Amino acid sequence: MKIAIYGYGNLGKGVEYAVAQNEDMELFGVFTRRPPETVKTVTGAKVYSAEEIKNYRNNIDVLIICGGSATDLPTMTPELAEDFNVVDSFDTHADIPKHFDNVDAATKKNNTTALISCGWDPGLFSLNRLYASAILPNGNDYTFWGKGVSQGHSDAIRRIEGVLDARQYTCPVDEALERVRSGENPELTTRDKHTRLCYVVAAEGADLERIENEIKTMPKYFADYDTTVNFISQEELDRDHKGIPHGGFVIRTGKTGENNAHNHIIEYSLKLDSNPEFTASVLVAYARAIYRLWQKGEVGCKTVFDIPPALLSPLSDEELRAHML
Amino acid sequence: MKIAIYGYGNLGKGVEYAVAQNEDMELFGVFTRRPPETVKTVTGAKVYSAEEIKNYRNNIDVLIICGGSATDLPTMTPELAEDFNVVDSFDTHADIPKHFDNVDAATKKNNTTALISCGWDPGLFSLNRLYASAILPNGNDYTFWGKGVSQGHSDAIRRIEGVLDARQYTCPVDEALERVRSGENPELTTRDKHTRLCYVVAAEGADLERIENEIKTMPKYFADYDTTVNFISQEELDRDHKGIPHGGFVIRTGKTGENNAHNHIIEYSLKLDSNPEFTASVLVAYARAIYRLWQKGEVGCKTVFDIPPALLSPLSDEELRAHML
Repeated sequence: MKIAIYGYGNLGKGVEYAVAQNEDMELFGVFTRRPPETVKTVTGAKVYSAEEIKNYRNNIDVLIICGGSATDLPTMTPELAEDFNVVDSFDTHADIPKHFDNVDAATKKNNTTALISCGWDPGLFSLNRLYASAILPNGNDYTFWGKGVSQGHSDAIRRIEGVLDARQYTCPVDEALERVRSGENPELTTRDKHTRLCYVVAAEGADLERIENEIKTMPKYFADYDTTVNFISQEELDRDHKGIPHGGFVIRTGKTGENNAHNHIIEYSLKLDSNPEFTASVLVAYARAIYRLWQKGEVGCKTVFDIPPALLSPLSDEELRAHML
Repeated sequence: MKIAIYGYGNLGKGVEYAVAQNEDMELFGVFTRRPPETVKTVTGAKVYSAEEIKNYRNNIDVLIICGGSATDLPTMTPELAEDFNVVDSFDTHADIPKHFDNVDAATKKNNTTALISCGWDPGLFSLNRLYASAILPNGNDYTFWGKGVSQGHSDAIRRIEGVLDARQYTCPVDEALERVRSGENPELTTRDKHTRLCYVVAAEGADLERIENEIKTMPKYFADYDTTVNFISQEELDRDHKGIPHGGFVIRTGKTGENNAHNHIIEYSLKLDSNPEFTASVLVAYARAIYRLWQKGEVGCKTVFDIPPALLSPLSDEELRAHML
């Protein structure tokens, strides 16, 4: 199947690497809003202008849209879903129902198949919340993120006067994780579950106390968390905090049996060296599923909840039953 | 939907408890091969003779078959799938393709829907092997079981002369787990991955050394493992080893990106106080999915690989997208 990438940042590069790992896929190329001649791809994929994409309707089986959730995807995905089978990683949880409706309507124009909100959260973590809660209805869900880099929080720090650069890590609180794993079903506040760890490069002569205070009291981003601020040099930031690791945990604890005497713990965890490359790998596996659904005539907008797992694998149903069940 | 249970051992009792936790389900009753008047159910479900089951074709939406994989399910599931939507937990991995074909043929008689090999392994562990391998094609899978009771190994010890009772625990080797989690992709032998821990009640005057030797050298069951044998009294066995806990780990490590520089670890684990009650809870969630598939006209034999996750949940697609994605 022929895959194309729309948008070429870290996620788009991750998709390019991931397609190269899958023998049943071929990369048609990368579409960018920048002048194509200024873009150099990581495995040598051909670069096209985003403006030309509609000329390639018959050359692309699935288009993986690698834009941002804040401003790109809400308009990009519905527009492109009119002409292409698409996969996106829209991750603004509260706006998913609206985005779903918009994309679903777009797919009706030319009978395409779309998957929105794919990746690991939303995505694999959502799947695990669903499976675990259906299996243990008498129980509680817990999602922890990290340790990992939050791009949004890093950006928020960079907007403070006197800050040259910053990197923010979201860290799960080990003690809270252990309480959940013990099966005690704790009630946990935002502050109980995660801490925020910031590395900040300040301009020479900047008021460090004011910067630290502005970070720690920033509503929504930091005020509800125990936040640690470390000032370091640009060299240290570049040397020690260049990566984009992430991960997290979805845990469900639930009870069964006579007088609910038996406790069960289902835990799913990810430990990722590169958040965008892993997310891209999820998008690519689901691109395979979306193409197969479209071939079967199952058009419309989907989420990971709607996709039979077998469609993700390059193996046949017979091979899966014989070797993986 | 109306659920019935066929076969009433530990698994059947677990299903009875699990159905009571799901508001959209009702338990029609329990079918047993024993005289019905001798069977007392744990939540007061009505008991019927297995011989009469065909009289209740119109009263049962899904029949959960709680028999053993060795001799019951290979004939029971195909026979019952002719007249009922069924779910079983057939777990002889090597015979799954044959069992699938037999059950699939049976469903064609009256257009029923069947799910075989449901539970946690095969079942949830299989799902995690599939998802993780599709997402990280350049990687390795590892499955560890335990710490938990193996009924088959306990039975094997009980067949030794001079043994009155026994309980065998399968234990994952922590060092092997840590090597896998470190991302080093180790090659692990059977002996590297699991140890076997046995608690044995011997007859008075029995030759303990011979019993221990017979256990440790038993082909397939123990000879390939480091096995520890502890002789204890019947009172100790009943007091300390009455439970049926189990669990395990499915871990995939894989690499992505430029020169495969980035490592990722996906880990799924279960820690279960009661193996049969948890397995039953999985069967019941999938019974919901099977009934919905049958309502849509999707007949035939299925495995967990074929089932869209959304069908397991009592929530609507809209609720799932709004609250669980």
